[in-house]
Amino acid sequence: MSDPRQRRITALADGLTAAHVDGLLVTSLANIRYLTGFSGSSALLFVSARDAVLITDFRYQTQIAEEVGDLARISIEPQSLWVGLWHQLAQLSYVEVIGFESGHLLHRDFQRLLEHGGRWQWRPTVDLVETLRERKDAGELALIEVANGIATRALERTLPQVKVGMTELQVAGALEKALRDEGSEGFPFPSIVASGPRSALPHARSSERAIEDGDFLLLDFGAEHHGYCSDVTRTAVVGRASDEQRAIHDVVRTANAQAARGVRAGMTGRDADAIARDYIEQRGYGELFGHSLGHGLGLEVHEAPRLARTAEGALAEGAVVTIEPGIYRPGWGGVRIEDDVFLGPDGPRILTSFTRELIELG
Amino acid sequence: MSDPRQRRITALADGLTAAHVDGLLVTSLANIRYLTGFSGSSALLFVSARDAVLITDFRYQTQIAEEVGDLARISIEPQSLWVGLWHQLAQLSYVEVIGFESGHLLHRDFQRLLEHGGRWQWRPTVDLVETLRERKDAGELALIEVANGIATRALERTLPQVKVGMTELQVAGALEKALRDEGSEGFPFPSIVASGPRSALPHARSSERAIEDGDFLLLDFGAEHHGYCSDVTRTAVVGRASDEQRAIHDVVRTANAQAARGVRAGMTGRDADAIARDYIEQRGYGELFGHSLGHGLGLEVHEAPRLARTAEGALAEGAVVTIEPGIYRPGWGGVRIEDDVFLGPDGPRILTSFTRELIELG
Repeated sequence: MSDPRQRRITALADGLTAAHVDGLLVTSLANIRYLTGFSGSSALLFVSARDAVLITDFRYQTQIAEEVGDLARISIEPQSLWVGLWHQLAQLSYVEVIGFESGHLLHRDFQRLLEHGGRWQWRPTVDLVETLRERKDAGELALIEVANGIATRALERTLPQVKVGMTELQVAGALEKALRDEGSEGFPFPSIVASGPRSALPHARSSERAIEDGDFLLLDFGAEHHGYCSDVTRTAVVGRASDEQRAIHDVVRTANAQAARGVRAGMTGRDADAIARDYIEQRGYGELFGHSLGHGLGLEVHEAPRLARTAEGALAEGAVVTIEPGIYRPGWGGVRIEDDVFLGPDGPRILTSFTRELIELG
Repeated sequence: MSDPRQRRITALADGLTAAHVDGLLVTSLANIRYLTGFSGSSALLFVSARDAVLITDFRYQTQIAEEVGDLARISIEPQSLWVGLWHQLAQLSYVEVIGFESGHLLHRDFQRLLEHGGRWQWRPTVDLVETLRERKDAGELALIEVANGIATRALERTLPQVKVGMTELQVAGALEKALRDEGSEGFPFPSIVASGPRSALPHARSSERAIEDGDFLLLDFGAEHHGYCSDVTRTAVVGRASDEQRAIHDVVRTANAQAARGVRAGMTGRDADAIARDYIEQRGYGELFGHSLGHGLGLEVHEAPRLARTAEGALAEGAVVTIEPGIYRPGWGGVRIEDDVFLGPDGPRILTSFTRELIELG
């Protein structure tokens, strides 16, 4: 039982009785990776108290054996994963009622269950694996820390390269090269490099805009290590910061610090969000903080829990969450400062080691 | 009617009668972008012969106005897109039967339709927009050509930087930086840089493996321009190629050339696949070409049509497809050469301008 994947499968199987199902069909690839270690892009997994059966296609024959070992019975299907599923399920005589992941099954595939899987009863389930994933174990935490180290070292290498006249895309390229050089397996989401007035767009993509003296330069990006993500944002000024830039950066920095130190497992997502939001409101910028404070991260860059005004659930001990307050003044610019924080038994631990002071570039 | 998006919406609306629906709920973001130009990550679109209603959230208020103009009625929803949908539909008294995209709607959201949208009849549809997207217009073709130019110029800048001892991740970083410097908006898929024996894995990701003298180096990557993708593969040798490397590369190069010159609109995907496959089989490597010949590309890097042994449909005139034969010898290495090809009225036009001769690096 020292293999964390075996513990996870057992914990999931324990929960299936409460969900009134004999087994669960897992279709989320992130959930499959969490439970079995398989990192390919084509798989179906069936889990019960007695069995774990993983179905993939011939392209992954070598990889799946290496990654999964004897943790699950592996089936390589020549035709389609679904044909393989019917075949495998037919051999499990105790199975009558099967849960499926309502948030990870397309209607098209739901129709397959009804049409070709009619000999079983199918029951929608929600977040059975996601709830387990919210509490990171020591191994997962270590991987997220490595992904944070990759991200911050890449940022250190990138900032000195920024010059007036470079485009946002060029800065993104320098940053992404540094991420690769530091060993990032991939980019968990499209890197955002947003300059000047574009830094006020909370969902900017990097563009051909050339950086000007006096611009805010917002970089929101992440690294990936053994499937686990980091998600970091810093906002610098190109050249000398104005008083107003400095004042707004200061409010965001304090909101970030208060929330990162004040967030606790057991608190609701709403109360965590309020730590930063109340401070920003007090300082008169409440209208300009238009998104929520943060989200969980792990195998996916957005996962449970949510830190938001509408999040009534308690934050699980062991969760890793982003703390990312921002202030955005349309047409002028915006500041966001984002760290990843582990909610440990003794309080929060900030995983992102990079100055939060305002950096003036060049 | 000169706006291509208006033509697309009209063409879609014309097809709705045949599908026996009064309107279509579009949930695929690529389909929404194709029909309206909106590039955000949160939207629902309703289209009928009389109306086009696009629902998004407050984060995209500015962007959607710029991108969509008066092509659709825009609704910014404070609560959720779904609440907005019920509200908008309730105002369209002629609507009774609504199609939805079975391949782009999660079961969770399908349940919403039944529970909260019970005053309408919901009918699954398949590929109504995808079929339109298969035939590219002149504007789309021009964007794919730009994306091809970005990709090939980036490859030109990258190959001279490759040195023995670099890791695959470092080469990926150099390539991705060059893509950004050439203006790529993003990476349509995770770049594959696979060296030595890893080049034999058709679904390799870039790894920490250090490149050795004599290795095959396979690079499979793409660029993005105004949402449109390119998808290119070349395989070089680090140092001097062996006779066997040269022989296998030669077979793949000839298969690529024969298929790229021989593929035609109107041909089935199976017959197109067979051009390359028959040649590779004749040369005795049939067992080592384990994937299909290619796929359509456009706003997505994998879209209709398929060029594969199981693809019975005729290739549409105006499609852009990849031609990517490969030979993979497990444990030794593999070669793939991939170009993007436009299926015009007068025959195929190759959009990827980069030598297909075997390159020896360093």
